[in-house]
Amino acid sequence: MAPSAITPVSAAPDHRPVKLAGKATGQNETTNDVQLRDVETTSLVLRTFRCLIADLCEQFKGGHPGGAMGMAAIGVALWKYVMRYSPENPSFFNRDRFVLSNGHTCLWQYTFMHLVGYTNMTLDQLKSYHSTRTDSICPGHPEIEHEGIEVTTGPLGQGIANAVGLAMATKNLAATYNKPSYELVNNKTWCMVGDACLQEGVALEAISLAGHWRLDNLIVMYDNNQITCDGSADLANTENVNAKMAASGWEVLEVADGNNDVDAIVAALVAARSSCSGKPVFVNIKTTIGVGSKVAGDAKAHGAAFGADEVANIKKASGFDPEKHFVVSDTVYDFFGDVKSRGRRLENEWRELVSAYGDEYPDLASEFALRVKGQFTQDWANLIPAKEDLPTAPTASRKSAGLVCNPLAEKMKTFMVGTADLSPSVNMIWKDKVDFQHPDLRPTCGITGDYTGRYIHWGIREHAMAAISNGLAAFNKGTILPITSTFFMFYLYAAPAVRMGALQRLQAIHIATHDSIGTGEDGPTHQPIELAALYRAMPNLLYIRPCDSEETAGAFLAALSATSTPSILSLSRHNLPQYPQHSRREGVARGAYVFIEEADGADVTLIGVGSEMGFAVGAREVLRERFGIKARVVSFPCQRLFEMQPREYRAEVLRYGEGIPRVVIEAYAVNGWERYAEAGYSMSSFGHSLPGAAAYKYFGFGEEVIAERVSAFVGEVKREGMESMRGEFRDLNVGRGEH
Amino acid sequence: MAPSAITPVSAAPDHRPVKLAGKATGQNETTNDVQLRDVETTSLVLRTFRCLIADLCEQFKGGHPGGAMGMAAIGVALWKYVMRYSPENPSFFNRDRFVLSNGHTCLWQYTFMHLVGYTNMTLDQLKSYHSTRTDSICPGHPEIEHEGIEVTTGPLGQGIANAVGLAMATKNLAATYNKPSYELVNNKTWCMVGDACLQEGVALEAISLAGHWRLDNLIVMYDNNQITCDGSADLANTENVNAKMAASGWEVLEVADGNNDVDAIVAALVAARSSCSGKPVFVNIKTTIGVGSKVAGDAKAHGAAFGADEVANIKKASGFDPEKHFVVSDTVYDFFGDVKSRGRRLENEWRELVSAYGDEYPDLASEFALRVKGQFTQDWANLIPAKEDLPTAPTASRKSAGLVCNPLAEKMKTFMVGTADLSPSVNMIWKDKVDFQHPDLRPTCGITGDYTGRYIHWGIREHAMAAISNGLAAFNKGTILPITSTFFMFYLYAAPAVRMGALQRLQAIHIATHDSIGTGEDGPTHQPIELAALYRAMPNLLYIRPCDSEETAGAFLAALSATSTPSILSLSRHNLPQYPQHSRREGVARGAYVFIEEADGADVTLIGVGSEMGFAVGAREVLRERFGIKARVVSFPCQRLFEMQPREYRAEVLRYGEGIPRVVIEAYAVNGWERYAEAGYSMSSFGHSLPGAAAYKYFGFGEEVIAERVSAFVGEVKREGMESMRGEFRDLNVGRGEH
Repeated sequence: MAPSAITPVSAAPDHRPVKLAGKATGQNETTNDVQLRDVETTSLVLRTFRCLIADLCEQFKGGHPGGAMGMAAIGVALWKYVMRYSPENPSFFNRDRFVLSNGHTCLWQYTFMHLVGYTNMTLDQLKSYHSTRTDSICPGHPEIEHEGIEVTTGPLGQGIANAVGLAMATKNLAATYNKPSYELVNNKTWCMVGDACLQEGVALEAISLAGHWRLDNLIVMYDNNQITCDGSADLANTENVNAKMAASGWEVLEVADGNNDVDAIVAALVAARSSCSGKPVFVNIKTTIGVGSKVAGDAKAHGAAFGADEVANIKKASGFDPEKHFVVSDTVYDFFGDVKSRGRRLENEWRELVSAYGDEYPDLASEFALRVKGQFTQDWANLIPAKEDLPTAPTASRKSAGLVCNPLAEKMKTFMVGTADLSPSVNMIWKDKVDFQHPDLRPTCGITGDYTGRYIHWGIREHAMAAISNGLAAFNKGTILPITSTFFMFYLYAAPAVRMGALQRLQAIHIATHDSIGTGEDGPTHQPIELAALYRAMPNLLYIRPCDSEETAGAFLAALSATSTPSILSLSRHNLPQYPQHSRREGVARGAYVFIEEADGADVTLIGVGSEMGFAVGAREVLRERFGIKARVVSFPCQRLFEMQPREYRAEVLRYGEGIPRVVIEAYAVNGWERYAEAGYSMSSFGHSLPGAAAYKYFGFGEEVIAERVSAFVGEVKREGMESMRGEFRDLNVGRGEH
Repeated sequence: MAPSAITPVSAAPDHRPVKLAGKATGQNETTNDVQLRDVETTSLVLRTFRCLIADLCEQFKGGHPGGAMGMAAIGVALWKYVMRYSPENPSFFNRDRFVLSNGHTCLWQYTFMHLVGYTNMTLDQLKSYHSTRTDSICPGHPEIEHEGIEVTTGPLGQGIANAVGLAMATKNLAATYNKPSYELVNNKTWCMVGDACLQEGVALEAISLAGHWRLDNLIVMYDNNQITCDGSADLANTENVNAKMAASGWEVLEVADGNNDVDAIVAALVAARSSCSGKPVFVNIKTTIGVGSKVAGDAKAHGAAFGADEVANIKKASGFDPEKHFVVSDTVYDFFGDVKSRGRRLENEWRELVSAYGDEYPDLASEFALRVKGQFTQDWANLIPAKEDLPTAPTASRKSAGLVCNPLAEKMKTFMVGTADLSPSVNMIWKDKVDFQHPDLRPTCGITGDYTGRYIHWGIREHAMAAISNGLAAFNKGTILPITSTFFMFYLYAAPAVRMGALQRLQAIHIATHDSIGTGEDGPTHQPIELAALYRAMPNLLYIRPCDSEETAGAFLAALSATSTPSILSLSRHNLPQYPQHSRREGVARGAYVFIEEADGADVTLIGVGSEMGFAVGAREVLRERFGIKARVVSFPCQRLFEMQPREYRAEVLRYGEGIPRVVIEAYAVNGWERYAEAGYSMSSFGHSLPGAAAYKYFGFGEEVIAERVSAFVGEVKREGMESMRGEFRDLNVGRGEH
């Protein structure tokens, strides 16, 4: 069946996709240079691959063999025939991106990477899967640290969202830099998913967005084996997946025999690559988990080795010697022998193209070169307002963030800024911003924008916003800086993806507004209490709570400087006082700093944090005037940055061992602050629906009451000594809410 | 148009729903006793309602008027004509449940509750919306604490998932207790959603499940105004919602004029209530946000008051005096005058039915009465294995959990236990368990089970699992105890719903297995490091990490005793030693307890936690033998339970002020433990893909190395004194991973 004869399901009257089967020649300008496929050799490759998988799982009695075996033919179609990449240079800029969303089948990817000739992926390395070797590049799920892996996957649903981001990156770069006859960026993104990924909410959000944006450079291959850990997928899912994808704006193709019919898979993938539907393509490929084993089609094939006897049986049935292990014949290696040279040719053609482009469009070419290198195209530090240019009147830090970020976003094509449907609240819109949209939406529903656009309306999809942003950042280090935004509380929805960004060392800036009970009337569902504890504990993440406009500028400086680390900027809804005498952006970079010193001896150190700094500064005044107590104030916007400072600096800020008690004041659960203080004035319950100022008051946040409690605490320390204090952390704000 | 003539979209050849319009008489046995609707009165009610909403938002210059105004006609149809409830007894057991998933439009619900006569919902209370009154029952989002509110909503997508749980509860109770002619439980669940909810992943997961389970007692009304905060919903969503719902197994109805055509809405809701499709029903109702105002159909109507002038204009256009505020005429009150008496009649009929049922089925009736009261039907404490009946060999705590829970689940109909597709891993299957499934799945795809089933296959949908479980728990306090299960790491996906459970004081038990780097080969994506910090900081949640089988029994006792609090039981994948000499279930109830005491003076207290207790006990031996250091050991399974103990107890366990340094040993980020210790042996990076034992070793978790570091620390304390220690927390496990 010729690709052109494939009928997309979304246009079929009965919503059933036309089945693809049989002999695609692949001799098509949109595919690679493919010879007519030799049935015998193909069979040998599939059998060899499956036995190798069985052996690799058997050696340490673990791993996920079934999915990898079931996807063997898909792998042949993809890695040998359809995907464009260069095994000897896995980071070739215009390579097709591949994402294994069903990451537990990673052995499938590792093994094809070995067969096609990724330099580091030796047979010895394959054998390190599930071993105790700490030099393994074959971990239990694919990890971005290793060459040829585009994104770390494993938590289900993340990968397909990442793939949407990778496809968006291509669209944006292509729209920005491509010129007639110069398709500098035209790679496809291929994503493999299983039954599980398609059930996860984050995937469903991302699927809706890919359809909305008409990302026709994205091809999702569905390993439809209908088996999950519990058994038949029907146990929990009986929907019409094809119809759902079509309703979400996807083209749907189907392959009936994904176990063996490499030709049909190639035909489908070629059709997908060259589709003119203007839609992302969903290729539903029917496979059998653990095909070739006695547990084929059974959940038992999913997550355990088969046992030595069954591995022997599989080999016998495959026509191999059951006594031999890890066998790959030269015929099999030869089968993939053309992939490397093809990759070199792709690279060379691209380099020549870029070179010719440079002659014709020298300015754009220079800018493009910077983007490829992951460098900003402007001197960004100078675009951040100086202290004297910041507002002096009380200002919400969400507004300060806009003042700092929007001029940057206007100038820096690297920035892609979006919001989970909170544009009016998060202040991230810059002058003349263009939306990232498919241009055809203008005539059909009046939506403006195009693929050069860098402002993203994510809809009410916080999780996909962060997960897709990971894909944007992963396209090529530094080429795109994703900036997301929503209320801080809803970064709990996004948390699994924020974590994956931190784990992968992908820079991103998350603008988290409405960060305290000061959020007000929306009530406890919208008032974060415990969320900061998560993000302060998360490795490789900067959770930064600035207290005024100057510290907000400092927060952006810190976040922009952390090129392998995502940041959350935690910002107020309500106006915050400005502290021009005290606040310093350089202090933010150090995590904490002395805000107000008491030169001639202090009785107590008050730790002020972000949106609640006003209570520390106010309580200090009351302590002095009403109680004759001298309080120094430390501003503490970021614990992780502080931990990175030398001990001398930390000792100076917190006065280690000087017998001055420290009290942290923050309207969150205090968990974690005990490291820096002997007492806390904090929250021990969820919040309450009241106007912001009233909510603070309701929970005892007022300078008078805080000063009274601190004064009593300082008195106790003076009477009983620091020693008695420090074994037992003191909660000074008791009697409100419940535990 | 008669309801019987309505064609569901899912059966229509072109997937376009038949539009409902015009005169439903409502004189149908499935609806309430409805008189022919008076067009003039209906118009007066709608105009009055919208002006009241405008006034209520205007008084404090805030709130969400637009959606509430747009949904006025839906409210009339629902609260006056179709829904079955009793305003004077909001907790009438067999009432229809109503969930406002677009919770920000709560003023809509409050106002209808006022009009139909909910006793506490006075006009004075309506005026407390967005006020500083702390006695308000009209918070910014609906809250379960207040009469007539089934669940707290606000975080988008949660409500529709809760509604699925409420509908499941009805199905399960009906299948368990109903008999021919005795429909003790046959209520419907009505859920209002907006454009936003339908974009959230948790909603999409829940929608798939409701379709799979064929919950035909669930009706979702879609306030289709096509406006979100950013503007047109088309900015981020252009999919075919009706087709997507149909593909997900829902019946779809559509109402063309949801602003004014009360008759059409009633017809649709009556059709939905009496549908024979065997599917949940999605009623797509076209409305205009802020209808009647000059910003009608604009995002400006969403989240801000209109301003005094515009409120006056709205009133003038509505035929009212612009100078008068909060006006509700007697005609309007009279219009709703029949609702209370109807409610009383419903209650009486139900009581008579239950009474007659008691005569015919006395045993079932007694059991049902206990369920209604929220009491367990068995003496559960005796079903928990005694210490001597627990295994003595090393046992994974995930296995211990099964040993404790499964006999309970077998006997107690209150338990509904499910897993996010990890049945083989979480060990929650009991003997002869029956799956919660629609019985018709057996012939069509071989899936067994029925609605009496109490084992739930959630699929790979962690977030919906927790959110729907909140609905199960909210049906009636204590009637159903939801137990969920997945890997601990994936409770990050579920976290927003776990939080909503804690906020709403809904008991649930979350079985979180694979809770440490001991999880092994799956690698850093599956190894929790920072997640415990979130759950330890979350108010009203018990995060319990038991160290052996006995403590696992204690964890269940604590979780089952906490009837207004959800618990997470944090369990190991790998075998843990048993400590029959030391571990005590009663100790778990207190959060922490002395595990191994040193009667004649100790040099250090080691805090051992859950799956890593072995390192504390092992290090203690090494400390004694190699270093001559006497270490006592405290087991610390739950911080929140410990905080609830009297100070004397806490002082005794942790030896406040006795000069004995304390070291916590746990393979998590240490954040929060600083409250209880001067030093920590913990993780400062993400994990690594290695077999469990090798992963521990890689990160320095071994008794020898821990003992060496603790010994050095104890030496430092002896040299320099406790005072110098306590100002600065010591991280003893340094040099691994990165920050």
